[in-house]
Amino acid sequence: MLTVHHLGRSQSERIVWLCEELEIPYALKCYARDARTMLAPADYKALHDIGSAPVITDGDLLLAESGAIVEYIVAKYGNGRLALAADDPDFAHFLYWFHFANGTLQAGMGRLMMLNRLKLADDNPVLSVARARVDRAFDLIEARARDADYLAGPTFTTADIMMGFSLTTMRYFQPYDLKRCPNIIGYLARIGARPAYRRAMEKGDPGMALLLT
Amino acid sequence: MLTVHHLGRSQSERIVWLCEELEIPYALKCYARDARTMLAPADYKALHDIGSAPVITDGDLLLAESGAIVEYIVAKYGNGRLALAADDPDFAHFLYWFHFANGTLQAGMGRLMMLNRLKLADDNPVLSVARARVDRAFDLIEARARDADYLAGPTFTTADIMMGFSLTTMRYFQPYDLKRCPNIIGYLARIGARPAYRRAMEKGDPGMALLLT
Repeated sequence: MLTVHHLGRSQSERIVWLCEELEIPYALKCYARDARTMLAPADYKALHDIGSAPVITDGDLLLAESGAIVEYIVAKYGNGRLALAADDPDFAHFLYWFHFANGTLQAGMGRLMMLNRLKLADDNPVLSVARARVDRAFDLIEARARDADYLAGPTFTTADIMMGFSLTTMRYFQPYDLKRCPNIIGYLARIGARPAYRRAMEKGDPGMALLLT
Repeated sequence: MLTVHHLGRSQSERIVWLCEELEIPYALKCYARDARTMLAPADYKALHDIGSAPVITDGDLLLAESGAIVEYIVAKYGNGRLALAADDPDFAHFLYWFHFANGTLQAGMGRLMMLNRLKLADDNPVLSVARARVDRAFDLIEARARDADYLAGPTFTTADIMMGFSLTTMRYFQPYDLKRCPNIIGYLARIGARPAYRRAMEKGDPGMALLLT
């Protein structure tokens, strides 16, 4: 049985959401962050040597890393649904945004979150560079959300699932004011209207306000 | 015609290496970093809004992001070679290490590189956490390199191409002493013995010492 080990307010919301979109059978096991440190609890860290979310188990398989888990579930249980094939005209867009999620956006927001802990002067040049890189990432997404309903194109794909966390729940950890990005807000309204997204968030993080604006 | 825009000493070495492994026709256009700032030159930044390497062009297509470019080339020109299919027993290993490259290892080394610019006290707690995360990533790779010839298993795959940059050339930007990782050194010896790797590095970064130990 496929089991999604979900750490509250974490990247593993992607995996819960994916399973709800695919409507496949899965077991959900939820873990709460330590209330004081906001870190993963010991039983979550013990799941996999990497010590962070997401993690799934599937029979003897133990697997971490969002991108890997999403590709695994789509191939093994989703019959390739929510991914675009190589002959699709939007194939390159799909690949770009899928990998942009952790390769650029999440990496950039993570760097900024870490710098903010250091309480640097507002004009620190390292901080300025890190902010500019995150702004550039949001600018790219804003331009894409102006041109297409979903990131790959007209069709919802796993690229949206990969990106969704960084655009929403990640902002609990690294705030980002979306006022400058009206098309991203419109995009997140489309995400927020998806029944599978709402079911996933209700199951994984019940009561958490969704940062869709 | 597929054109790889290679910025010297950058993640785009992955794409040159991939093309050499696949032995597909491609044009290579090389760009040197600014000698003073070590940043990409203006003509490289002008290629794509993201402003960083790698970038490819293929007819009307302009594509960035390592993971996306690797998947695109394998699907369009490689007939799926160097990737493992869903029915391969090493499929999950393949996916894990492919995504671990930029999702965990490169992200962690990038955070550390940025922190080092701040000249923090050696016992700064944010620096300690960032170092521990990179050490943990190398520990995981070391354990894998003890158990298998390549990261996915007995077969060389694009997971090795994704990881290779972070284990070698990235150490020009964020040094990491591999003395504690004898199995990674053994793994890098296998990488360094590959004719396609050597051809790629000769073409992309001629004269650059390869950080294989």
